[in-house]
This record gives sequence, structure tokens and C-alpha cells, in this order.
Amino acid sequence: MSMPDTPGHDQIRGHESLSAAIMAGKTGGKTIVMKFGGTSVGDLERIRAVAKRVKVEHDRGRRVAVVVSAMAGVTNRMVGYCRDLDPLADPREYDAVVAAGEQVTSGLVAIALQALGVKARSWQGWQIPLVTDDAHGKAAIEGIDGSTLLACLDEGVIPVIAGFQGVGPDGRIATLGRGGSDTSAVAIAASINADQCDIYTDVDGIYTTDPRIVKRARRLDRITYEEMLELASVGAKVLQTRSVGLAMRENVRVRVLSSFSDTNDESGTIVVDEDEIVEKELVAGIANSHDEAKISVRAIPDRPGIAAAIFGPLAVANINVDMIVQSTGADQMTNMTFTVSKGDEAAACAVLEKARADVQYGELQTSHNVVKISVVGIGMRSNSGLAATMFRTLAERGINVQVISTSEIKISVLIDAEYTELAMRALHTAYNLDIQEEQRS
Amino acid sequence: MSMPDTPGHDQIRGHESLSAAIMAGKTGGKTIVMKFGGTSVGDLERIRAVAKRVKVEHDRGRRVAVVVSAMAGVTNRMVGYCRDLDPLADPREYDAVVAAGEQVTSGLVAIALQALGVKARSWQGWQIPLVTDDAHGKAAIEGIDGSTLLACLDEGVIPVIAGFQGVGPDGRIATLGRGGSDTSAVAIAASINADQCDIYTDVDGIYTTDPRIVKRARRLDRITYEEMLELASVGAKVLQTRSVGLAMRENVRVRVLSSFSDTNDESGTIVVDEDEIVEKELVAGIANSHDEAKISVRAIPDRPGIAAAIFGPLAVANINVDMIVQSTGADQMTNMTFTVSKGDEAAACAVLEKARADVQYGELQTSHNVVKISVVGIGMRSNSGLAATMFRTLAERGINVQVISTSEIKISVLIDAEYTELAMRALHTAYNLDIQEEQRS
Repeated sequence: MSMPDTPGHDQIRGHESLSAAIMAGKTGGKTIVMKFGGTSVGDLERIRAVAKRVKVEHDRGRRVAVVVSAMAGVTNRMVGYCRDLDPLADPREYDAVVAAGEQVTSGLVAIALQALGVKARSWQGWQIPLVTDDAHGKAAIEGIDGSTLLACLDEGVIPVIAGFQGVGPDGRIATLGRGGSDTSAVAIAASINADQCDIYTDVDGIYTTDPRIVKRARRLDRITYEEMLELASVGAKVLQTRSVGLAMRENVRVRVLSSFSDTNDESGTIVVDEDEIVEKELVAGIANSHDEAKISVRAIPDRPGIAAAIFGPLAVANINVDMIVQSTGADQMTNMTFTVSKGDEAAACAVLEKARADVQYGELQTSHNVVKISVVGIGMRSNSGLAATMFRTLAERGINVQVISTSEIKISVLIDAEYTELAMRALHTAYNLDIQEEQRS
Repeated sequence: MSMPDTPGHDQIRGHESLSAAIMAGKTGGKTIVMKFGGTSVGDLERIRAVAKRVKVEHDRGRRVAVVVSAMAGVTNRMVGYCRDLDPLADPREYDAVVAAGEQVTSGLVAIALQALGVKARSWQGWQIPLVTDDAHGKAAIEGIDGSTLLACLDEGVIPVIAGFQGVGPDGRIATLGRGGSDTSAVAIAASINADQCDIYTDVDGIYTTDPRIVKRARRLDRITYEEMLELASVGAKVLQTRSVGLAMRENVRVRVLSSFSDTNDESGTIVVDEDEIVEKELVAGIANSHDEAKISVRAIPDRPGIAAAIFGPLAVANINVDMIVQSTGADQMTNMTFTVSKGDEAAACAVLEKARADVQYGELQTSHNVVKISVVGIGMRSNSGLAATMFRTLAERGINVQVISTSEIKISVLIDAEYTELAMRALHTAYNLDIQEEQRS
């Protein structure tokens, strides 16, 4: 039962500690990484806007390294080409094809910076080098030699780094998987001891919940790594889970902010260590995930070893099981209910059909019509009343909780999908997360 | 007065001689390079067709290396992006951007081959490495380590090489200039001692002249390097001049054939050494070039050193002068008329205006309304009547020859552009190049 997107893999060499740099304070001479996503570099006008924004930071005397994604739509087109030619395309060739998108953007942003009179040059993953393992298509970073980029910065030249890509032990281009440019940016920030890694995107920060569902959602000024990690893993899509795990381990301050509006040092949401947050909120946010399939294995004769008989074969098949509940009826028969991601449902059922003789269960039931609602906050550690608030709030609305799972700073419940909006708004209010009228902009 | 596109620059290491391989004969165990241009890999259907064609050669027991251009239109789009951001974009960044097109195609063709069950892998210029000089945007090949590709072939894997690109001494991507994929293909053929370099394109070979102008144009089965070099340099656009010069120097047999029709070993036109052509034609072809601007410097007091005073400053400004004629009138004043490429006209006039005080000429005249018609053939060497045929043919049609230039196997004349079609058809007939009715397919 491993994490869906295991952090703890990416290793960054080339730096000692960030704490000294952080202590040095906020202004002047800071080294920052500015990362721009696909919509932020979606056309030449946006690329010019990115260059202007980078120049602003450069003109403030900051040492800036830029990390870019492919222009919006390009990666999808490249992936489509590969899949069209062969749905099981060689991941090494897939990597060569899709990495071209970031290569183009890095060159274009460097040209746009030079057109503003700022020295800049592009860097591909293999040129730095940013070394990955050999898991083409979803490679993990093995190390970055920060000295190359530091030398570039020392010459007063802004490095514009193609995100999402590195070079594998086979000397071939390797990509980090979708959203990997965030991980590139954090890893590069660590390798050059950057004071901060600014992730420019199409939203202006991390919200207490999805503002499309809960109108009274509030932008957070700060959030801890742990909270962000939990939120990212349960459906908040702003940052890639792996990038948050890496930032936490390498102690990189990450800021999420919009490239589509004017910003200043206070804009967006900063993801930091718990020590840096003075006024800690009990609950940071509420997330929802529709990528859950519920599987129930019913009428199992109760005996020791049932869990192993069910979950062992699933683990062997590399299927991640998330929430689990076991119940025993009056007839002494046991039911085991759990969730897998929707993409794994068919494979999971096939595994369980094969295990039927061994487990001797009566029936297999599946359901898509569920949503996982998660409440995340470091306050969970000390305040046991937070779980009770969740159950009471849902019960008052007549919402049945089908499965529960918890971590140190998270409670997740599986409920009927049609209650999604009702549950999220009620919980948002119950945890005092609603924005106050006077806070609205 | 250097050549417009100087061959003699690209150096290929890693092979001894091709003659032994050529002697080995045509069938079985041959090593061939198959190069596909932009329209040949213009979409996924075309890429699948390319893969099938490569598989045919592979299945015949041939060792095949593939070189690919970018998908049609991609390079132009990338060039447009760069120019839009900065008309004088840093050529190193320009190279990173535009080389992405060939990177994509190499990966896609490798996937398409694998989908047919053929082992294949992509190679970027920096991976081989194909080392260039530092003239980014129009780099020359300094050397190719053929051992990498030979090892790939020895493993039974078809290398699919991104054309047009290499890596410069600065470790950055360098491109060879427009049409550079032909040069890549020839250089790679030389580095692996290939028996032949097949250039697949959208025409089915080299013609005696432009078939759009002269309906009775005839496809040549064979042509010598020298003739092809002259034809390419005076307007025949099928092969890049540099690639022909390189093929001649490295003695690489080059074949030009269509990727849009079925082909066999006899298809297309083979460019070979003179020794290999048994029935030598006196004239191989007739080309036209509209990229000529005529400049006349009139009424110059006749004295020694005039030519140096005019052409010295032009050479310093890196402007190539092509055809030259000097005439002296009854008033003892000299006129100097010459041509430059249209792109250089403005710069040439500026240089000459600055030199006015020194040269003391009366007047500067320019004209665009001219065409250069060239007759090319190794027969020129021994048959002086060929020049006379040209002048007589043009005179009979009342076409005035403004400037003449000759090389060992070429005569070029500059005439009024409105006579282009008339002159080409008349010359094509006069040199007995017209296709016979029974030869038409």
C-alpha cells in the first residue's frame, strides 16, 4: 500500500543547507528560481510577459534562474503523436519527442530576455547535467551539478532551464512525468541554494478548497509542506506531489503565484516549514478527489489472514489501495471495502477474480459513484475534536460516510458523489475557513 | 569573391575509403543511409509510410541508417517564433529552438519502426556526437565518430538520426543551416562507410531542367558530382550545394528519389564519380536563378586598380559577387557590371556609396529584372562548340546577353527575366536534352 506518487526519490546534490540563506532575509542579493507553467508561456505574447517579469526581479538585484514548461498544448500534441504511432511507445523515444517542447520554450524565453537587454542562455537537462534514473517517462532526479548554473549566474547570465527533462544513465533524454517541471524547479532551487522557488501558474495561490465549488474559499498566505503534500495527494492539483515532497526534504521555500496578474513579495501562497508559520491554522484546506473506485469483497468466511489474501495479490500487481474498512455482519461473515484509483479498477477486479478460490468470498461489488473528501491541517495532531467536527457536520446533512481513513494531519471520508458540493461547503464553514466579507477583494 | 555556399568545409572522420565497398557490388549486406525530407515525414501517415519503406530495405538484409528532417512546416514555425521575438535572435538559442523539430521526428520514426517490429532508436547530434564548428545557425561539420552508429548497426538496431543538427565546441546544439539535413545524411554515410546515401524527397530525381518550365525535361539516371554541384549552385534546389561538395570529396554515392512513389534500385538519379558514368552526356542540365541583382558602376575614369577599389570593400563586407563584366566606352570611361544575390543588394549599394570618393564613378544603377541561365555539363571541358551553341541559340531568339560567366563545366548568362521560359526551352532543345516521345511514361 505505497503512496500513489511516492516522494522521497529525488536526490539533489550540490548544496549544504538553505537555512543560512533563509536567515539572510528577504531583500537584496537573493537567489530565486522562477518557474513558468505551460499557460504562462502559451504564446509569444505570454513569453514576452514572462521575460518582462523576470527582468523586474533581475533589475532588483536578484540572481534569477528560470525554469520553463512547454507551451500549453505542445506536450499533449507530442504525447498524442507517440500514442497514435504506438500506444505502448518506447518510453525512451517518447522522452526524446515530448522533451522537445521544453527545449523550444527555453530557447524562446532566452531570446525574449536578450531582446530586453538581459543576458540569458538556455540549458537543456543533458547540458547541466540534470541526471535522472533510467525510469524513462517518469524518471526521478538522481542529482544536479549546481556548479554549472552557479557559474552561469556568476557571469551575470540568467539561465533558462528546460523543465521536465534530464539525462538518464544511458545518456538519453529522460522526462520526469507529467507536471515534472515543478519538480525540476524545486530540484534546481536546491542545487543552487536558492532562497525561494516561485512557481508561476494560472491561479494566484493555494486555496482552502476549490473556489469553483466553494465560493467562500480563501487564499492561504502560508501553508506547511506537510499540509501541501497531503492536499496535493488528495486532489489539489496546483503543485505536483513529488515537487512538494522534494521541497520539504530539501527545505526549499516554494511560492505559488499567478503569472497573469501583477505580483509583489506578498503575492501568492508560500509553502514553508512549520517553524516559519506563526499563526497556525488548525485546518489548512479541504480537498476532493473523484478518482476513486470503491471495491467491496463481500461474504468472506471470517478467519485470520483474509487481509493478506486480498491485499497481497493487489500489491504484487502494483495496484495502490487507498482507504480500507472491514466489517463483520451478524452471520459471522466479513466484508472488506476499499478504494483504488479508477484507472486501476479493472486490473484490481481481475486480480480478485483470480484470488476467489483462495479467499472464498461470496461477491465482488464495485462503485464509481463516490468522492473522497479530505480535511488537512497540522492542527489534527493535537486537536482530536477536528475529526468529530467532520462526522457531526456530515451527519447533520444526512450524508452517509462509507469509508474513513486518516493520517497524522488528514482525515478522508468516502461519500456518495452527489453530496460533493454540499459536504465541502458545510465542512468549509464548520472549520471556520470561509472568507469574511471584509476580506473579499 | 568566394563561392555563395562554400563547400570544402565539412570534415568527416571515421572511415577509410568507399571504393572497396562500392566494388563489393549492389546486392546483399550493403550499408545504406536513407534520408527523408520534411514533406516525406509531414504527418503521422507519412511517418508510417517512411517506416514501411525502411523496413523493406532492412528485410532485404541491408544495414540501414535513417536521417530525418523536421515535419514539413515545423522549422518555418520555429524560425518565425525566434524572428518574432528578436529579428537578430542569438543564433545559439535559435539553434536550440529549431533543432527541436528534427528531435521530434527522430523519436517518432523510431517509434513507427518499432511498431513494425523493427529494432530502432533515435540519435540526436549531441549523442553521436556529430561535432560542428561554432558558426551557430550555419555550422559546418567538424567530425562524426562513426563508431557509435556502427555499434548500433552491429546490434541490429536501426539508428534514426536527427538531421540538420550537431553539437558545437561550446557543448550547445548547432544547426547546419537550411537544407542541412542533406549534408547530415552525406556526412553520416561517409562516417559509417555506407555504400549509398538515398535522399528521399518530393521529386523523383534530378531533371535536365525545371519540368515546370520545360515540359520536355528529362530525368537523368546519373549525373556527376561536378555537374550536380554546379547545378545546385545555380538554382537547382533538389540537393543542398554543400551536401554535394561533401559527397564528392568523401566519394559518397548519392541517390535522389521520391518518397511518394514506389521505388526500386533503379529509381531516381544517382550522383556519382565521372568514372562510373559510361555514356557521358555533353550537357547534363540547364538551371535558372532569379536570385540575382545586377549592379552597374558607370563612368569610372579608367586607371589601374579599379577592380580592387570596387570589389575589395564588397569582400570586406562579406558580399559575394558572382558574374562580372567590364566594358570601356569611346570616352575612355569604364563601366563595371556585376551581380550579387538579391538579399545582398542593399548592403552592396551602401558599400559602393561609401567608396564613391575613392572610385570616382559617375553613376550607380541596379536592376532586379534579370535571370541567370546556366548550362552545365562535363562535356564543356573538351567541346568548345557548346558555348557557341548557347550564344547562337539566344541570338536567334533576339535575346540579349548582358553578362557572361564560365567555369570549367558551366556557362552562365544573365538575360532579361521575361525571356526565361523562351531561353530555357530553346536551349533544352538545342542541346538535345528533350525527352523523346517513346521515353515518356
